[in-house]
Amino acid sequence: MTYISNEQLDTFHHIYRINLINSCSGYKSANLLGTKSEHGIENVAVFSSVTHIGSNPPLLGFICRPTTVMRHTYENIKSTGFYTINHIHEDILKDAHHTSAKYDSDISEFDKTGLLSEYKNEFQAPFVKNTPLQIAMEFVEEYHIKANDTLLVIGKILGLHVDDSFITDDGFIDLVKANVATINGLDGYAVPKTNERFGYQRPQ
Amino acid sequence: MTYISNEQLDTFHHIYRINLINSCSGYKSANLLGTKSEHGIENVAVFSSVTHIGSNPPLLGFICRPTTVMRHTYENIKSTGFYTINHIHEDILKDAHHTSAKYDSDISEFDKTGLLSEYKNEFQAPFVKNTPLQIAMEFVEEYHIKANDTLLVIGKILGLHVDDSFITDDGFIDLVKANVATINGLDGYAVPKTNERFGYQRPQ
Repeated sequence: MTYISNEQLDTFHHIYRINLINSCSGYKSANLLGTKSEHGIENVAVFSSVTHIGSNPPLLGFICRPTTVMRHTYENIKSTGFYTINHIHEDILKDAHHTSAKYDSDISEFDKTGLLSEYKNEFQAPFVKNTPLQIAMEFVEEYHIKANDTLLVIGKILGLHVDDSFITDDGFIDLVKANVATINGLDGYAVPKTNERFGYQRPQ
Repeated sequence: MTYISNEQLDTFHHIYRINLINSCSGYKSANLLGTKSEHGIENVAVFSSVTHIGSNPPLLGFICRPTTVMRHTYENIKSTGFYTINHIHEDILKDAHHTSAKYDSDISEFDKTGLLSEYKNEFQAPFVKNTPLQIAMEFVEEYHIKANDTLLVIGKILGLHVDDSFITDDGFIDLVKANVATINGLDGYAVPKTNERFGYQRPQ
């Protein structure tokens, strides 16, 4: 195995460096965050940092990098209080990834891709149509991460739209059955085809 | 599609609820965190919340739930300042998942599984031998998440041990080539076999 030290990282081309560090944490969640601005412009953007924070209350977090296009998502969440999380699946990989392009805030990614918005239960933020799992979220709180000037944004799950056939008897949502994707690095997408469950573990 | 509201979640059996909420964010990273206590006891524990925080400086975070077995990992990180992140791969799924069992702090999971510790470059925390990617980490800072009394623990990458054959010309670490696993919910593991890269996107 090769050893790459922090000091060596500093000598790499910046593209090489960001690819390496973005791949090294392992597979990431592949989600589209849907928002609507105060002026009624819909926004949809790919995020790979959505993380489970806790089940009771049901909380999810994501990391927001102030210098990226995802800033529109953050601004809309802060001004309206609501957003949606939609799972990227096998059939929309290319369109989902294209939402990472830096469009101006008056342009909706729904108009620049084949992705379609839909509204449900009078929730004000747009869901992404035909995604296997759609979550209605409400902003709760944020933390400024001093080490690199990013934000951890935490939201509460208000409700989930999910196809019953993906849920097993004990509440497990089978992402393989739903053809959900996972992200490797900045631009790699994989769709796992098999899985295995090992159950709750006790000391032996 | 079925709609499950937050109010309905409260009526579910707690096992059903935690399975559902733990699965609903999408695929998660599958890592073993290696630490050593002040008394020299090695600890290794599975985590599914390791998240990329930023590339420059190279930072990774994870969520620590005070009430779980993972608390030993947290205590060791706080008392020593160092830990390792090791990728779970196809050949160690069962042993890796077993580290979630609640062992007492004087027992090492390395003694209760087939996982082997190894030491490199005089780094004081144990790596997990034969894992395809091993990261030496130093504690940087932590944030107390008020919404559910958990902690976001942030560390800096000091160095990576990785097989050259997994890294492409532009620095991308191909997790498919490395047979790295991803976690679905609390106890589901998948090992993706194919992936696709879509490149950097510009407005069109």
